[in-house]
Amino acid sequence: MLKVGSYSFNSRLLLGTGKYPDFDIQKQAVDVSESEILTFAVRRMNIFEASQPNFLEKLDLEKYTLLPNTAGAKTAEEAVRIAKLAKASGLCDMIKVEVIGCWKTLLPDPVETLKATEELLKEGFTVLPYTSDDVVLARKLEELGAHAIMPGASPIGSGQGIINELNLGFIIEQSNVPVIVDAGIGSPADAAKAMELGADGVLLNTAVSAAKDPVKMAEAMKLAIEAGRLGYEAGRMEKKRYATASSPSEGMSVG
Amino acid sequence: MLKVGSYSFNSRLLLGTGKYPDFDIQKQAVDVSESEILTFAVRRMNIFEASQPNFLEKLDLEKYTLLPNTAGAKTAEEAVRIAKLAKASGLCDMIKVEVIGCWKTLLPDPVETLKATEELLKEGFTVLPYTSDDVVLARKLEELGAHAIMPGASPIGSGQGIINELNLGFIIEQSNVPVIVDAGIGSPADAAKAMELGADGVLLNTAVSAAKDPVKMAEAMKLAIEAGRLGYEAGRMEKKRYATASSPSEGMSVG
Amino acid sequence: MLKVGSYSFNSRLLLGTGKYPDFDIQKQAVDVSESEILTFAVRRMNIFEASQPNFLEKLDLEKYTLLPNTAGAKTAEEAVRIAKLAKASGLCDMIKVEVIGCWKTLLPDPVETLKATEELLKEGFTVLPYTSDDVVLARKLEELGAHAIMPGASPIGSGQGIINELNLGFIIEQSNVPVIVDAGIGSPADAAKAMELGADGVLLNTAVSAAKDPVKMAEAMKLAIEAGRLGYEAGRMEKKRYATASSPSEGMSVG
Amino acid sequence: MLKVGSYSFNSRLLLGTGKYPDFDIQKQAVDVSESEILTFAVRRMNIFEASQPNFLEKLDLEKYTLLPNTAGAKTAEEAVRIAKLAKASGLCDMIKVEVIGCWKTLLPDPVETLKATEELLKEGFTVLPYTSDDVVLARKLEELGAHAIMPGASPIGSGQGIINELNLGFIIEQSNVPVIVDAGIGSPADAAKAMELGADGVLLNTAVSAAKDPVKMAEAMKLAIEAGRLGYEAGRMEKKRYATASSPSEGMSVG
Repeated sequence: MLKVGSYSFNSRLLLGTGKYPDFDIQKQAVDVSESEILTFAVRRMNIFEASQPNFLEKLDLEKYTLLPNTAGAKTAEEAVRIAKLAKASGLCDMIKVEVIGCWKTLLPDPVETLKATEELLKEGFTVLPYTSDDVVLARKLEELGAHAIMPGASPIGSGQGIINELNLGFIIEQSNVPVIVDAGIGSPADAAKAMELGADGVLLNTAVSAAKDPVKMAEAMKLAIEAGRLGYEAGRMEKKRYATASSPSEGMSVG
Repeated sequence: MLKVGSYSFNSRLLLGTGKYPDFDIQKQAVDVSESEILTFAVRRMNIFEASQPNFLEKLDLEKYTLLPNTAGAKTAEEAVRIAKLAKASGLCDMIKVEVIGCWKTLLPDPVETLKATEELLKEGFTVLPYTSDDVVLARKLEELGAHAIMPGASPIGSGQGIINELNLGFIIEQSNVPVIVDAGIGSPADAAKAMELGADGVLLNTAVSAAKDPVKMAEAMKLAIEAGRLGYEAGRMEKKRYATASSPSEGMSVG
Repeated sequence: MLKVGSYSFNSRLLLGTGKYPDFDIQKQAVDVSESEILTFAVRRMNIFEASQPNFLEKLDLEKYTLLPNTAGAKTAEEAVRIAKLAKASGLCDMIKVEVIGCWKTLLPDPVETLKATEELLKEGFTVLPYTSDDVVLARKLEELGAHAIMPGASPIGSGQGIINELNLGFIIEQSNVPVIVDAGIGSPADAAKAMELGADGVLLNTAVSAAKDPVKMAEAMKLAIEAGRLGYEAGRMEKKRYATASSPSEGMSVG
Repeated sequence: MLKVGSYSFNSRLLLGTGKYPDFDIQKQAVDVSESEILTFAVRRMNIFEASQPNFLEKLDLEKYTLLPNTAGAKTAEEAVRIAKLAKASGLCDMIKVEVIGCWKTLLPDPVETLKATEELLKEGFTVLPYTSDDVVLARKLEELGAHAIMPGASPIGSGQGIINELNLGFIIEQSNVPVIVDAGIGSPADAAKAMELGADGVLLNTAVSAAKDPVKMAEAMKLAIEAGRLGYEAGRMEKKRYATASSPSEGMSVG
């Protein structure tokens, strides 16, 4: 059970809603993923422009918790403004803080992320900041009261998987709120690895939407996250430099 | 569907039966894994010594295909002798050739593996040789007529996962018979990765039997292999050095 | 030529002075390394306690530029105080800002590092901040006016080498001041790798002082940094998935 | 001092002579590298066709030991024939056995390599077989009497560096003859890493000849190999998961 603030979820997969080939495939992928939390950029909400097709209209919004994000924000001020706009829609009071500090790498701005998180916590939001894997920054976000920490595995949409397992492990060790690995997951093995490290959840988008078959990949991700979580709970074997026979050699009757 | 010689299987997980804490846990792990192929060292069969407890007696052998292995063999001659002993038991006609060339690393002997494979194919066995990830050796085994190729990910029982993805990828690309990654898998992410590379199956033992909770890990492995296979079929996104926004920037209404 | 603020150096190796077996070995290692910049924790300076043996007393201080660091500081305020103490000694006006945010990982505090850097720049210091490999944080430090950026390869004294080549590469790409990889280097190959990525220098300590033979390792590091720099300037070959013959096949006269 | 059979060398860098932009650059690179062993494909020798320019004619052959290789051979028989042709030229009695088993990956054929090595040893050659990193195969080559073992780091000309450090380490541990890492080295850090693992030498070609500035890269490689060797002899620090302060905290006088 993944608990974020006052919310509880059975699924540990948070799915993004951007860049699917079409809304039907998006809907099928979301269904198959069994994700309960859908994230989307507030700036893409056409809720104020009813004439345009809405990426959310195919989805049964009763079934999902919406997690709007502040993608597009370059400053804390912009992020706060976007978050308030989302809340005003009445759809949600959770917000994923995303303040980008570099448009080439889409890596987050640590200072503005801290500021936005602080401000939005004061305003009563349930706040999930997207952050780099800077270990001390992650602790500062938790100390401010963030409801979850969302360190990136690698740059958004890069599909490079987890580059720094050590930092991710440190963040997981130190955190008392959920750690949700966000950004950079490229394949089911990446997602499983994040969960094996002890992450509480994984947020991904491009790995599904840019797969050749997004619906099948959504299912793969659902299973991978379950597998990784079970693997974490089961307690993996230790790694060894040298081999160890899996067939005991005692009592050999042949040879 | 995994097809090896004249056999077909729904599951792509081949499970070893060695070194479980006890036979009950072994049975539960096997059940939960939904594996259809169980491997075991022939030298551990106590079928000729009915007075001793038998590691297979808890299992409903109607449900499984048994894949005896020649663990303990140092030469082709020994491997052939062990294989014939297994066949004489009437339990199976598949054999996993395992001829160890180094007791510290448990890495296979390429020359004796080739010889044993050739001899056992002549004798009519369905032969699955365990081999290093030497690409040319793998092709030679296929040219002899091996029914599957079983390259190691890393040393037996080491849990180091896949060290050489490149060679494994080359073996998968060149092979027209199933490639089953055997040895070295340590965690669900490792198993998923093997399947994403295009392997047809994964054989593992210690990763389950030496987990703190083998039954839960067996379930994790089952899911990871399904996830990896689906991920392979779905066609993963390309990796990129730089980031790519998952939220399209067109039509920004906020900012 | 490495230029930091108004200083120029032929050597790109910055050497720490801590934890050598004894002061003679320290001196020999420093000599052999041909390093021109020596770093040390201000808190270890016994300059006010002339009765105690001083780690600097064996060294010909005319030959070196001293780079005191603020190790031990937990806040910007402490770091500034330590820096001023160092300057008051008359030995130097460069300072390596090191504000630790976690005593288990010795990873730096991004917020306090920014503050200390800003304050010390105002005071006229030549400031080299030790930082995580957070890409946006590195840019903010440069924007403040830092004279060099010193991202860690991995935790101080861990010897794990470069974990995140991608972020290090991004920092090098974006920076107009020298990037000196600091912390985590464990072996000559690690140091060469940092230089090949385009770093302007490497700061290390434990890799030399904790080697079995620190003097020999100091020489190894000197050569590795030269090798890595030359390799960077020479422009390495591209990596390829498949092989390429180094012996042209045209004009084969044998076969 | 690198000893191969009855030969001794100060340099641990073996350099290939193929694919340089022109013979002048080749000569300069060879000079700067301080390599004492030059390898070349026998099939490229134009010694019998005096009218054509010869790649060796710029070099002072008194200074070098020539190591012809059997590149182009697909079988042991071909390799033996090529080796004899080289010996007949009177230039050398060392031979690098290279029997390729796959033209896409240029990976060696283990069976034919064994055969060719055995045959050439009988004929009195000093034999250095190029092999995969199959650990048992390497031991068999040594048992035959090979004068050095030359495992590949990754495919010829791929520049991928060392993929399987574990196998390379195992081969080095078990071998009583020199282990010379051959093929796949892409950069100075790769070469240093091979030497740190305990290799006795490195053979490379494309990493130098395909660099933007081959002469500068030749110097880089020379230094990297010296650095890696010194690092190996110096005994590197242990890797640690957590940080260790390089500035002792005892006697803090500040803070």
